[in-house]
Amino acid sequence: MIKLSDIGEFGLIKRFSRQFLQDIPGKYTGIGDDCAVIPVNEKEVLLVTTDMLIEGSHFMRNKISAFDLGQKSLMVNVSDIAAMGGTPRSAYLSIGLTTETDVKWIDDFFKGIRHVCQEYNMFLLGGDTTRSHDRLVINFAVIGAGIPQKIKRRSSAVPGDIICINDYIGDSGGGLQVLLNDLPQDKDSKYLIKRHNVPRANIREGKWLSGWKEVHAMMDVSDGIESDIHRIMESSEVGAEIDLDKVPLSEELRRTAEKYKWNAHELGASGGEDYCLMVTISEKNPDKIIKEYEKEFKKPLYKIGRITESKGDLIFRYAGKLTGLAKHGWDHFK
Amino acid sequence: MIKLSDIGEFGLIKRFSRQFLQDIPGKYTGIGDDCAVIPVNEKEVLLVTTDMLIEGSHFMRNKISAFDLGQKSLMVNVSDIAAMGGTPRSAYLSIGLTTETDVKWIDDFFKGIRHVCQEYNMFLLGGDTTRSHDRLVINFAVIGAGIPQKIKRRSSAVPGDIICINDYIGDSGGGLQVLLNDLPQDKDSKYLIKRHNVPRANIREGKWLSGWKEVHAMMDVSDGIESDIHRIMESSEVGAEIDLDKVPLSEELRRTAEKYKWNAHELGASGGEDYCLMVTISEKNPDKIIKEYEKEFKKPLYKIGRITESKGDLIFRYAGKLTGLAKHGWDHFK
Repeated sequence: MIKLSDIGEFGLIKRFSRQFLQDIPGKYTGIGDDCAVIPVNEKEVLLVTTDMLIEGSHFMRNKISAFDLGQKSLMVNVSDIAAMGGTPRSAYLSIGLTTETDVKWIDDFFKGIRHVCQEYNMFLLGGDTTRSHDRLVINFAVIGAGIPQKIKRRSSAVPGDIICINDYIGDSGGGLQVLLNDLPQDKDSKYLIKRHNVPRANIREGKWLSGWKEVHAMMDVSDGIESDIHRIMESSEVGAEIDLDKVPLSEELRRTAEKYKWNAHELGASGGEDYCLMVTISEKNPDKIIKEYEKEFKKPLYKIGRITESKGDLIFRYAGKLTGLAKHGWDHFK
Repeated sequence: MIKLSDIGEFGLIKRFSRQFLQDIPGKYTGIGDDCAVIPVNEKEVLLVTTDMLIEGSHFMRNKISAFDLGQKSLMVNVSDIAAMGGTPRSAYLSIGLTTETDVKWIDDFFKGIRHVCQEYNMFLLGGDTTRSHDRLVINFAVIGAGIPQKIKRRSSAVPGDIICINDYIGDSGGGLQVLLNDLPQDKDSKYLIKRHNVPRANIREGKWLSGWKEVHAMMDVSDGIESDIHRIMESSEVGAEIDLDKVPLSEELRRTAEKYKWNAHELGASGGEDYCLMVTISEKNPDKIIKEYEKEFKKPLYKIGRITESKGDLIFRYAGKLTGLAKHGWDHFK
């Protein structure tokens, strides 16, 4: 018997996606990007994404408030819409609850959802409420809209492209460490927990970036840079070099890492759930876009590496020297 | 503390849907019908539905094959599209699996999904694979298309309407009893198990019925007639009378019920997961539509009752006499 742990998450996806992909009509994008893309007309495509969160695997109920969990479970889907340069429109929630659940908790959970809906001008249009015997299970599907010519895919990276991300990374992984190890909650660790529990979806930033033809590939960083750059490498059939010392880290993460002897750069490269955007930009004049981005959003777009021709090879450098990673990005089944 | 079991599934839905419904634009249908309805243009609407199945609550892994579970988990969503008179187009699967899962089981599960996709000419376009520590969790979202003028809602029933269903009912509930009690598997009980494990979605029938303006309300029977007619009664602000002796029961269910002393008519009214269609038809000339239906599908459309003006009152009759039900339809949290 071959177990799921033998082939891992990406082995599983490859295994079944091949047969389904051959059924999908040419104008559609299925399995393998942040969202599915469905043509509507010349001016619009539908974007569809879905994400499941299971208590004990993705969150611990005593480590996140109901309001924040409501926000986060919807936000991670909105982030997938951002990663295609789209606008979220409607959400569909399936929730498995135990009969013992406090109705007050449920009220707060829905308040968190409504807060995100109102922030992004989207609507909760449907779902399914059902019984779970023990663990809370949450699944959102989100439908958004995009402009066909502007959709950014994982498969569009070109050798020479500059790899950029638009926010500090590793904060969420640091916050998870604080929660898992019950570390004291000072100002820094509270910031990290907040970054873990309440990620932001970069809808405005994603739309803006998708407006540039020089921006080639785009995705959101959900499983960590190392894991996610592999997705772009596979889809685009390229390699990549990442300069670990250029990966932007918050002061809060640096200080907390020093305190607890974490390798902050590794947390930055292998921690997940940051939900910032990673883009590859044409090498011709990336600084023009980076400057315009800073002007528009009053915050930097960080260069962290380069796409190479060396298909499948991922190289990490620190201060110009080759280095490896002790930890690797997230595989749910390994 | 108020627990979820105190307010029940329908109490919960009422509780949160009020606030979300007030946010939804007028042309949309949200929460409260088989599908959400999103306007696209004058000729088309999008239909969206989602359903979650949790091991131990909705199925037992040793009582259904992987292939059948793949089929069923998608089919229950396709049935919601049928209930609006629509055509399914694309599917999105979230699945929570344990690392110990046999890859052969997963292969068979996906074969079942692909079988349904091919039968209904729809595509699996995306999803999420994730880890579950113990129970298998499956969530499908399905998007379909409908014609705006033909969409049938739960809210369109009118006093005087004749209530019809388009298939035997109770088989699935009988099959579940056979499985739960490990009853001997003879020809009859095998038929009932098959009806429980592999329901059919009535896409052709739903589309045909939605073409008649005399057909007012339509839904699929997923929680049992008693529970589901209540949904129509609430949405349409009407009452209903059901003639239990007119509820069509298969010979297989009748024989098995006699053998094990089940009340077959109660199973028919309160058992769930039959996924046939329930419609209300104008009282003016229902027999015309019933005859045309029989001509088209070579099977009957069964009259089982009538919509009344008596808002909120559901009456059961047996051979013309008033009767009650010992069991009630399905509430996941009670």
